[in-house]
Amino acid sequence: MPRRYAFGRAEEAYHPDSMRATLAELVSTFIFVFAGEGSVLALDKIYTETAPPASSGLVIVALAHALALFAAVASSMNVSGGHVNPAVTFGALVGGRISVLRAFYYWLAQILGSILASLLLRLVTNGMRPQGFHVHSGVGEIHGLILEIVLTFGLVYVVYATAIDPKRGSLGIIAPLAIGLIVGANILVGGPFDGASMNPARAFGPALVGWRWRNHWIYWLGPFIGGGLAALIYEYMVIPTEPPLHTTHQPLAPEDY
Amino acid sequence: MPRRYAFGRAEEAYHPDSMRATLAELVSTFIFVFAGEGSVLALDKIYTETAPPASSGLVIVALAHALALFAAVASSMNVSGGHVNPAVTFGALVGGRISVLRAFYYWLAQILGSILASLLLRLVTNGMRPQGFHVHSGVGEIHGLILEIVLTFGLVYVVYATAIDPKRGSLGIIAPLAIGLIVGANILVGGPFDGASMNPARAFGPALVGWRWRNHWIYWLGPFIGGGLAALIYEYMVIPTEPPLHTTHQPLAPEDY
Amino acid sequence: MPRRYAFGRAEEAYHPDSMRATLAELVSTFIFVFAGEGSVLALDKIYTETAPPASSGLVIVALAHALALFAAVASSMNVSGGHVNPAVTFGALVGGRISVLRAFYYWLAQILGSILASLLLRLVTNGMRPQGFHVHSGVGEIHGLILEIVLTFGLVYVVYATAIDPKRGSLGIIAPLAIGLIVGANILVGGPFDGASMNPARAFGPALVGWRWRNHWIYWLGPFIGGGLAALIYEYMVIPTEPPLHTTHQPLAPEDY
Amino acid sequence: MPRRYAFGRAEEAYHPDSMRATLAELVSTFIFVFAGEGSVLALDKIYTETAPPASSGLVIVALAHALALFAAVASSMNVSGGHVNPAVTFGALVGGRISVLRAFYYWLAQILGSILASLLLRLVTNGMRPQGFHVHSGVGEIHGLILEIVLTFGLVYVVYATAIDPKRGSLGIIAPLAIGLIVGANILVGGPFDGASMNPARAFGPALVGWRWRNHWIYWLGPFIGGGLAALIYEYMVIPTEPPLHTTHQPLAPEDY
Repeated sequence: MPRRYAFGRAEEAYHPDSMRATLAELVSTFIFVFAGEGSVLALDKIYTETAPPASSGLVIVALAHALALFAAVASSMNVSGGHVNPAVTFGALVGGRISVLRAFYYWLAQILGSILASLLLRLVTNGMRPQGFHVHSGVGEIHGLILEIVLTFGLVYVVYATAIDPKRGSLGIIAPLAIGLIVGANILVGGPFDGASMNPARAFGPALVGWRWRNHWIYWLGPFIGGGLAALIYEYMVIPTEPPLHTTHQPLAPEDY
Repeated sequence: MPRRYAFGRAEEAYHPDSMRATLAELVSTFIFVFAGEGSVLALDKIYTETAPPASSGLVIVALAHALALFAAVASSMNVSGGHVNPAVTFGALVGGRISVLRAFYYWLAQILGSILASLLLRLVTNGMRPQGFHVHSGVGEIHGLILEIVLTFGLVYVVYATAIDPKRGSLGIIAPLAIGLIVGANILVGGPFDGASMNPARAFGPALVGWRWRNHWIYWLGPFIGGGLAALIYEYMVIPTEPPLHTTHQPLAPEDY
Repeated sequence: MPRRYAFGRAEEAYHPDSMRATLAELVSTFIFVFAGEGSVLALDKIYTETAPPASSGLVIVALAHALALFAAVASSMNVSGGHVNPAVTFGALVGGRISVLRAFYYWLAQILGSILASLLLRLVTNGMRPQGFHVHSGVGEIHGLILEIVLTFGLVYVVYATAIDPKRGSLGIIAPLAIGLIVGANILVGGPFDGASMNPARAFGPALVGWRWRNHWIYWLGPFIGGGLAALIYEYMVIPTEPPLHTTHQPLAPEDY
Repeated sequence: MPRRYAFGRAEEAYHPDSMRATLAELVSTFIFVFAGEGSVLALDKIYTETAPPASSGLVIVALAHALALFAAVASSMNVSGGHVNPAVTFGALVGGRISVLRAFYYWLAQILGSILASLLLRLVTNGMRPQGFHVHSGVGEIHGLILEIVLTFGLVYVVYATAIDPKRGSLGIIAPLAIGLIVGANILVGGPFDGASMNPARAFGPALVGWRWRNHWIYWLGPFIGGGLAALIYEYMVIPTEPPLHTTHQPLAPEDY
């Protein structure tokens, strides 16, 4: 496994770069969770039936997450790598792309950002309890767990391909958009089944502030399994280790034609 | 016809690059079909009437396909060319941009990815049967066929113009977005008539796992005709073969002003 | 006024570049009108009330136009400049960015593409009459005319700023997206009042094939006035003619910091 | 605090660059407010109930603002820095990125653009009164104020990270999109509570032309506090002042791998 972080642990722990990256993760996760969980509460305010959300409600929740995550990832991309999600950080750790210490800092920042967003939401909505996630009726807990694994696998695969792969080239420019929008698409699928979190920090803050812990464990275990799996597959099976064959049209430079 | 793949068949068959590209097509098609077909099942879960989908249902299905395809294409762009669709692969083959062997690998991978996604959807939804595509009432099978031809023509023309054209330049950066979003727009048109597949792999996996074969052939023939036509027109009529005239504002470099 | 097209009229008339650009305008306008007008017919199929469209219908129509126009502009950007709209071509002509001959070719191609799309729509929908545009009840024809002027002014201003301005720099990469999405936003405003065409070719094909000519003239006059106005303002008031002052943060190069 | 504007006040006041930037802010704010406030009036036309907007209405308003703001920011990015919002201008002023004089010009232009858009909306809609913003029932004025602070904090943080940060690099290309879409996401949250303005010019024009001043002050104070706070945090805590440690995967150049 290549070591890509070329300095000692003690130096990293106190270096301003680590602090800045940690702060960026905190603020970005705050922005994302405020919009994501906030859109659920906004629906609650305009829609009073408590049944599974109607289709336009699903669009609102998916769009709020997609658009906010795109902006949040773009905002922290060049400072912290734009994780905004403990499962992404776990994937980067499994692939050997960040150090354990850095991962700890990020996890802490992501969780704090989510709690802060949930608290502020409770304040500005005049006391509404955050909803968080749970498995909907008609689906078992095990189905929810597998769904979180599959959806997070897709998300972290996209993160790896567009934001981490050293051969991503100019596609890195649209990485934040691809990351935000795959989350939006996945919510349109998973929303009516288990809420489609794909992000333990996104689930934890509202669970804590709203004090709702039903099925909570699957929103940690699922994303970590799915994210780790995607990282392993991409890091060790897709990233090339030998010189390429110029065979498809994409990698060809214009001069090759 | 120019040969753009500069190595022997035997070498290509076993080279790690071919394997990686094939794997990337499989995973990307999996991500796309899971979100696309999954959004149809999600609607089924929140909406129980079986009549043609209401307008907000149409938005959900179109968005899920558009956003997931964008992310899927972006994720495989630099590895396999980002086809994620046998009709796109067929277009690239017709235009002489990939070899027959590579096309076979891609088709296999795309179909496998779609089947895998359909199986997992059946599992996580606690047994819901994938829907796939069929021609809706009030429209004949021949109308559905022509619609698939026209919609896929538009899709593959966009793929050619933004992702394959050697003069695409920096517009290649937004190619995955243009490809994903034209599919979204086309679903908003074709959805209520024939479902608007434009992609035989997208149609095949759910048909197999849900065992629904009504009108299935038009979702193979239509996209292949439309995709082949777009490739022929773009490859032989739009891509220039002689030195350009600097006549419109776009191709001018800043210094020319 | 600077001459930016550096060759004689006769040469331009027959040069393959002109033909290719004209073909690209035809195909791109075809793709755009097929999706735009097609989404209106799709709504007709799933929604049978004839009252002004409900809000989710408005979203569908706006999204179909926005997403398809983005892909259509991206597809023709490097070949023809990505006009896909006679009012944009008129703006480029007023600003001196293309020749009169080229403008004629483009207009012809755009109108042909729109007619072709409308004919095919009538075919695949089993005979539905295209709707085109008219001023809705409660609004006068003069209000519709002013609305088309204002909305097209916004559109062509965005085209000029992101796709024509020689100092647009790397923002040109997202020009097709900005162009597509401002059309989407403007439809969300103008849709319930006059349909928000902003594009004479978009209006003409469906009017001809559906044979509906009520208020048709405002969909030519409005966009040409609005587009011409935007071109004049941008070309002569915004594009700088003297060396810049480095005063805002944007135009500064990284080294300046 | 570094001075980034290298010329005297008198020179700046009359220089054509200042005039052009001011004009660009005016036109861009006009385009944005016309679409944003216009979408609210469009909803009023198709939807006659006066209760808090239904969920599809919320999607329309959020999309209209997001898409139009993206296009408006893209259109003025290279001319004026793409503020289109007095709170963004205030943030840039607090961070020392523009001069006080320039800020005054921008504020004037933004307010004029908004008033002009509101007047034209009243004209083309045959006399509908612009709605502007107010705090909805069930929420106190203080909650609305805090909500505007939090939402604008997120917006200006995104502006700083993607459009102002000198180390933003190629992510600057998608800055207008990130800025537009975070506004869309935030409207999906804040819309049902206080309308989610985040922009004093957006609030002022409709308030003046529609003569509705309830709670108006919070739409000035909130965005200025939130925008100023984001600028301080980003400018002084996130932007690095010492040489970086190459520790995360993002800032690494391809050669480093």
